[in-house]
Amino acid sequence: MTSPKTGDLSLAERPTLRLKPKADKRVRGGHPWIFSNEIVMEGEARSLPPGTVARFETASGEPLGAFLYNRHPLIAARRLSRDPNLLLDGGWFRQVLRRALAIREGLVGVPFYRLVHAEADGLPGTVIDRFGDHLVLQVNVAGIEAHLDLLLEALDEVVSPTVILLRNDSAARQLEGIESYSRTAKGRLEGPVEIEERGARFLADLGEGQKTGWFYDQRDNRVFASAPLKAMGEGARVLDLYAFAGGFAVQAARAGAAEVLAIDRSASALRLAERSAQLNGVEGRIEFKKSDAFASLEFLERNGRRFDLVVADPPAFAKSRKDLPQALRAYRKLARLAAGVVVPGGYLTLCSCSHHVDPPAFAEQCRRGLFDAGREARLLKTAGAAPDHPVHPALPESAYLKALFYALD
Amino acid sequence: MTSPKTGDLSLAERPTLRLKPKADKRVRGGHPWIFSNEIVMEGEARSLPPGTVARFETASGEPLGAFLYNRHPLIAARRLSRDPNLLLDGGWFRQVLRRALAIREGLVGVPFYRLVHAEADGLPGTVIDRFGDHLVLQVNVAGIEAHLDLLLEALDEVVSPTVILLRNDSAARQLEGIESYSRTAKGRLEGPVEIEERGARFLADLGEGQKTGWFYDQRDNRVFASAPLKAMGEGARVLDLYAFAGGFAVQAARAGAAEVLAIDRSASALRLAERSAQLNGVEGRIEFKKSDAFASLEFLERNGRRFDLVVADPPAFAKSRKDLPQALRAYRKLARLAAGVVVPGGYLTLCSCSHHVDPPAFAEQCRRGLFDAGREARLLKTAGAAPDHPVHPALPESAYLKALFYALD
Repeated sequence: MTSPKTGDLSLAERPTLRLKPKADKRVRGGHPWIFSNEIVMEGEARSLPPGTVARFETASGEPLGAFLYNRHPLIAARRLSRDPNLLLDGGWFRQVLRRALAIREGLVGVPFYRLVHAEADGLPGTVIDRFGDHLVLQVNVAGIEAHLDLLLEALDEVVSPTVILLRNDSAARQLEGIESYSRTAKGRLEGPVEIEERGARFLADLGEGQKTGWFYDQRDNRVFASAPLKAMGEGARVLDLYAFAGGFAVQAARAGAAEVLAIDRSASALRLAERSAQLNGVEGRIEFKKSDAFASLEFLERNGRRFDLVVADPPAFAKSRKDLPQALRAYRKLARLAAGVVVPGGYLTLCSCSHHVDPPAFAEQCRRGLFDAGREARLLKTAGAAPDHPVHPALPESAYLKALFYALD
Repeated sequence: MTSPKTGDLSLAERPTLRLKPKADKRVRGGHPWIFSNEIVMEGEARSLPPGTVARFETASGEPLGAFLYNRHPLIAARRLSRDPNLLLDGGWFRQVLRRALAIREGLVGVPFYRLVHAEADGLPGTVIDRFGDHLVLQVNVAGIEAHLDLLLEALDEVVSPTVILLRNDSAARQLEGIESYSRTAKGRLEGPVEIEERGARFLADLGEGQKTGWFYDQRDNRVFASAPLKAMGEGARVLDLYAFAGGFAVQAARAGAAEVLAIDRSASALRLAERSAQLNGVEGRIEFKKSDAFASLEFLERNGRRFDLVVADPPAFAKSRKDLPQALRAYRKLARLAAGVVVPGGYLTLCSCSHHVDPPAFAEQCRRGLFDAGREARLLKTAGAAPDHPVHPALPESAYLKALFYALD
């Protein structure tokens, strides 16, 4: 028998758990999750250690596949394979990683991307971002945590990183009943890492930054938002709200903006953004300001400051479902205030990364905010995350990022 | 008084129509349409000629703006402006066109685009596609038809085309009670017109082709679908179903595909596609075949033909709401059959331009089709129409085009 650390029992000892009658329709139709209230909670189901690989079957004994099982969270089982006898070994991890890698190499071209995006890439609850020869992992489920050694070995073999960081400190781990920690699994992190994105260079702070240190999901949206600047000629002014490490601001300056005002509440993020601006030779055209976005917008409005392009890419206003009404009001207010400082004929990009706010709801709040501001607008494009953040077809709600690009009259 | 032909009465004679009590909420909130059952149908409301410019006001007499009025269709009034005294003259048309033009020049870079996309561009029910110095108009509402002379003059002044075609033969015109016709309003069309799209050259048949002769809405999707081919090296095979004039097929060949099989039921479309392939020097790598997509897929499956990329961009399966159940089944079947001829690790692009099939419904049918085919897939991207097809914020349902890009295991 293998150690509890790795969790995967030998096939002969692999437990078989059973769904309640009529609870199998969704899973049989391709959905990768089983909820705890769908499982017959008897015997082993009540005692297996979190992260055990288990076979699941319907009430009538029809096999459903191999799943990572954890009786604690609502999402109690996550499918690894339709094959109930899939062996969760190094070979399986290497195969999953090679496939994820091949797709990114085809899509992105440079080694800076989200390498693994959880269920969509066949690795439940696990995110891996690649920064050249640095990898940052976020393991959010007990089942992968229990097999972390195998995953790390497979990463070594498939990607050969020099540094691997584990940012295993998400709130989700509490629900899974696994400890939170952040540590270096391989090599040593020495300061911010330089990345390349759509022709620009940026510094990402993997140790200190938010999440894994860089938001690759906005890669293409940063370029699209700035595209109209190229035709504006000299003098275009841009306001980048929630600028974080400067992704939108630097691309706007590279696209020809004469002045970019980049606002964020984090002084450390702005310091990094300023260094990124220097890497691209545009530091003279970006002013970095530590401030709150809403307060800044009111100040700028009062002082008659106007911009040809305004971008607002805030952190999630709705962190949970109960925040939803308040979050919707905040998105509407942000749209109103941001529209208020766009010149006639200017552009406005509004984003939301709240899982709990679906695309139509976000678009409707933006529409209301624009209307509140008395601005007519056309919606040029609705975009999601960059394609290295794929979506599992049965989990469309996992498409969390919304970016709306408006041209205002 | 002006002639009934131009429809716009002088301001002093402009009629004022009234909404029923409580029917004003949507319009006051920014929606650009008034439905016939929301209008007090008395006096002038029952006799004004289709396309008259009218003031509208709420039941209590509050002004709502200037609208194009036509008592016949369900959408009885379309807003021109919140200003009830807006003068619908040449200056107004020029202003609308200049704004639409400035946005396209910023977004597309070459003079080949949808110049006006109806309500979103402030020109109700009217589509204008630009092919360099050729313009193709589709006027679908009586209000713009009644002011066609002003629109054509304004186009001359703002865009200076050498040829203007009127493809005023849509089914929508019947509902509006205006005659259908197709004619040349300026210059003379001499054969297909050459356009440039994302580095490729194409021929568009403005006189004979479907709709206005070319589908600019797929411009960016054609390039994104083919992007993975670049990393595949030699030998990549592509299947382009509903190939029409070769938009996807030629971009796939340009991206490096060794063999493209382009299938369409229209021999004339395929002949044009073949000439476009020649323009790009890729005619040796595209096989053009006149055939039905479903029959071809079954034939190719049986014969073991497999492809690294399959694209299916069919005409609207749901032309009206009553077609919906049948259309959903057809999208599911198409997804199943198309997935069946994709190699392991290959790519699949599925599109729908049915207004009546909303994005979640289309994605769900595609998911089911992939599941029916026994194929695991990740959804890399969900896209709509190119940004020269903007959406009016209050008409999100007018975002008709859906393109789903999958990587299959």
